[in-house]
Amino acid sequence: MTDLPAGYRALDAKALANYLAELKPVALRLGGSPQSWSIEEVGDGNLNLVFKVHGPAGGVIVKQALPYVRLVGEAWPLPLSRAHYEHMALSGQRRLTGALVPEIYHYDERLALIVMELLEPHIIMRRGMIAGTVYPKFADEISTFLAETLFHTSDLALTADVKKAMIGAFSGNTALCKITEDLIFTDPYRIAKLNRWTRPQLDPYAERFRGDGDLKVAISRLKLKFLSSAEAMLHGDLHTGSVMLTAEDTRVIDPEFAFMGPMGFDIGAVLANFLISFFSQAGHEEGPGARDSYREWILETFTSIWEGFAAKFLALWETQAKGDAYPSDLFQGPLGVARLAGERQAYMQRLWADTVGFAAAKMIRRILGLAHNIDLEWIKDADMRARCEARVLTLARDMMVNSGDYPTPQSIVAAARHFDQWQPPLGG
Amino acid sequence: MTDLPAGYRALDAKALANYLAELKPVALRLGGSPQSWSIEEVGDGNLNLVFKVHGPAGGVIVKQALPYVRLVGEAWPLPLSRAHYEHMALSGQRRLTGALVPEIYHYDERLALIVMELLEPHIIMRRGMIAGTVYPKFADEISTFLAETLFHTSDLALTADVKKAMIGAFSGNTALCKITEDLIFTDPYRIAKLNRWTRPQLDPYAERFRGDGDLKVAISRLKLKFLSSAEAMLHGDLHTGSVMLTAEDTRVIDPEFAFMGPMGFDIGAVLANFLISFFSQAGHEEGPGARDSYREWILETFTSIWEGFAAKFLALWETQAKGDAYPSDLFQGPLGVARLAGERQAYMQRLWADTVGFAAAKMIRRILGLAHNIDLEWIKDADMRARCEARVLTLARDMMVNSGDYPTPQSIVAAARHFDQWQPPLGG
Repeated sequence: MTDLPAGYRALDAKALANYLAELKPVALRLGGSPQSWSIEEVGDGNLNLVFKVHGPAGGVIVKQALPYVRLVGEAWPLPLSRAHYEHMALSGQRRLTGALVPEIYHYDERLALIVMELLEPHIIMRRGMIAGTVYPKFADEISTFLAETLFHTSDLALTADVKKAMIGAFSGNTALCKITEDLIFTDPYRIAKLNRWTRPQLDPYAERFRGDGDLKVAISRLKLKFLSSAEAMLHGDLHTGSVMLTAEDTRVIDPEFAFMGPMGFDIGAVLANFLISFFSQAGHEEGPGARDSYREWILETFTSIWEGFAAKFLALWETQAKGDAYPSDLFQGPLGVARLAGERQAYMQRLWADTVGFAAAKMIRRILGLAHNIDLEWIKDADMRARCEARVLTLARDMMVNSGDYPTPQSIVAAARHFDQWQPPLGG
Repeated sequence: MTDLPAGYRALDAKALANYLAELKPVALRLGGSPQSWSIEEVGDGNLNLVFKVHGPAGGVIVKQALPYVRLVGEAWPLPLSRAHYEHMALSGQRRLTGALVPEIYHYDERLALIVMELLEPHIIMRRGMIAGTVYPKFADEISTFLAETLFHTSDLALTADVKKAMIGAFSGNTALCKITEDLIFTDPYRIAKLNRWTRPQLDPYAERFRGDGDLKVAISRLKLKFLSSAEAMLHGDLHTGSVMLTAEDTRVIDPEFAFMGPMGFDIGAVLANFLISFFSQAGHEEGPGARDSYREWILETFTSIWEGFAAKFLALWETQAKGDAYPSDLFQGPLGVARLAGERQAYMQRLWADTVGFAAAKMIRRILGLAHNIDLEWIKDADMRARCEARVLTLARDMMVNSGDYPTPQSIVAAARHFDQWQPPLGG
């Protein structure tokens, strides 16, 4: 067992009620007596206990880290310190984005426990997208989240001493980073015990990917960037399962994988999950073409996320560049301002190229690695599922190896439309 | 005043003798009684007290940080913690390179003081190169130093948790990093109080550089890399004034600027100082051409440093790659091994491009920024000095903006020969 501190114990409903009763602001928020509270353990993630607590006056969510991976059990220990990093990231995101993340009511480092805002009637975005639900405000809100959190924790906004302090503060979150390093950047490209995929239909794809030298060089370059580029504070796991929302309100949750890393990893995570959802629609629609308008919304939103992010990030850079990178002293006068404006575009183009690569990595891991998405898993017909998955894999492989061929989100959208019509050969 | 800890006091010779008398192993090494020791303060650097201590049996060097920049005085405070980082880096370099750095005899965190090996009859390399001294072993030894320290602290050699712990451990050395960020990556390209240059001869160059948009974009990209790329543990100030040597023995000293940064910064520092020395020879030779064979040695050594480094770094990668980057699992079999071999070459080419840019930055700062090199400063004829400096600046500017035009050390050597014949126009 890893760093189990004195005083830690995993709470059950009864222990939690007693605990919350002692937290006056939380008890007041719930109202009534602890006996009147309903407490339900609802954790459907892989790692933690999550309790939904309702009282007569209101509700809260309580998230407690377990000293092991819940999905696997005590055989896979995982340090409780992830609650510390989650709390640190969530606090920073709250400060930077306001109500785009849950409000924190209480944090207990000893119990690795966070009491936070209950989001109702929000649902996990992935489930909404499987149901074909349109979220008209999502592109605007997630692009704000990305721009505000990434810009304000980068060298464009921070002086080097403050940024290095953040790097130091997150440098201990190694166990969570290692999950990413192994499951996203390594295992899908080698024989690994935890890998799984739709068999035998995708056997030829899995085998081909394991033998694809260009792809393995590309994923290794991305891994090196993940290991060594401390560009900004990342959420670190920004898929559509880390978003809870309604048509009106978007919240990003679960930043326990947070660390100082390459910006494209977070942006790519969002975009990857949109492409996965796009290709999964064939497995969810009632008849061929029934989800066509939903497909259009997905692809429009895909483009809007990047374009919204880029516009907001550039606006922040133009107005709030108080960091040590690209010092304004060097770009004075009309010529200097014009030259910096050009360089900002070049910077965004480099960030886009990173984003394309990281998005591809996130797509491939969901099909050939350990952790799959219900977007695809819930497609019962294995041949149908495998066809959707083969389309995701084929586009992702090309995005990673030939990222220069995808200079804009529109170029990926065009390729996605093409591959969605393609009938991939299957094994077995 | 910054972090002056309880118990810190700057030592004078008498206090130092009393202090060393209490350190039994050091006292034994010196031999005799404290009264028999000769203590001389020899610090000619910009930051610290340095004492040379001789006793009947042997000698030691004592380096103590002052809470301010010695060159400037108490008006420029500088944290004593730099001794902590110097000790940490020196210990790591000693472990990795053996006798390529001084042995540490004692470290006192409270006094910010390191007692270390006295290097005699070593001299500062820069002084040797001004005198035209050939160091036949230098290319081999410095390339070993670079390869061993950079490889073994990179993601190629370390698992991510160990590397992140190093990043965290060095993340507090912000004051020293800021000196680099300001004096190398910013000030030479703007009007700054501390800048100085040979006036009026170089006035047109200084003005042109301050108005050069391409150059300012290029230096800003390098600065961003310096701020955000934690590739390996750097010495951080690896010029020829940080090397003490004889014809037989090379030692790297003074790693107080150490932090986890981009590898090309250290390699570029060495190469930059060789180019500066090359162009300075015209100001030191007894008659035109008298130093021609020395020039040849400098240029041959310039090439050998990179080639030696690249060969040793690649050999380490081939035999000791225990890190998380480029996992060997992904590159199995003849095809995998061949593909990884190709990627290693591509990696070295990217590192070379970084190196060229950082070398250029180090050349420019020594002529337009605060801290100059005696290679050039000791040229008494200001017109002669300015001509040498204009050659350095002109090559450096092209290296930084058009680094792709310099794919090999030989291409820089060819350009250096060309510019050494060039009669630059001077201002005034």
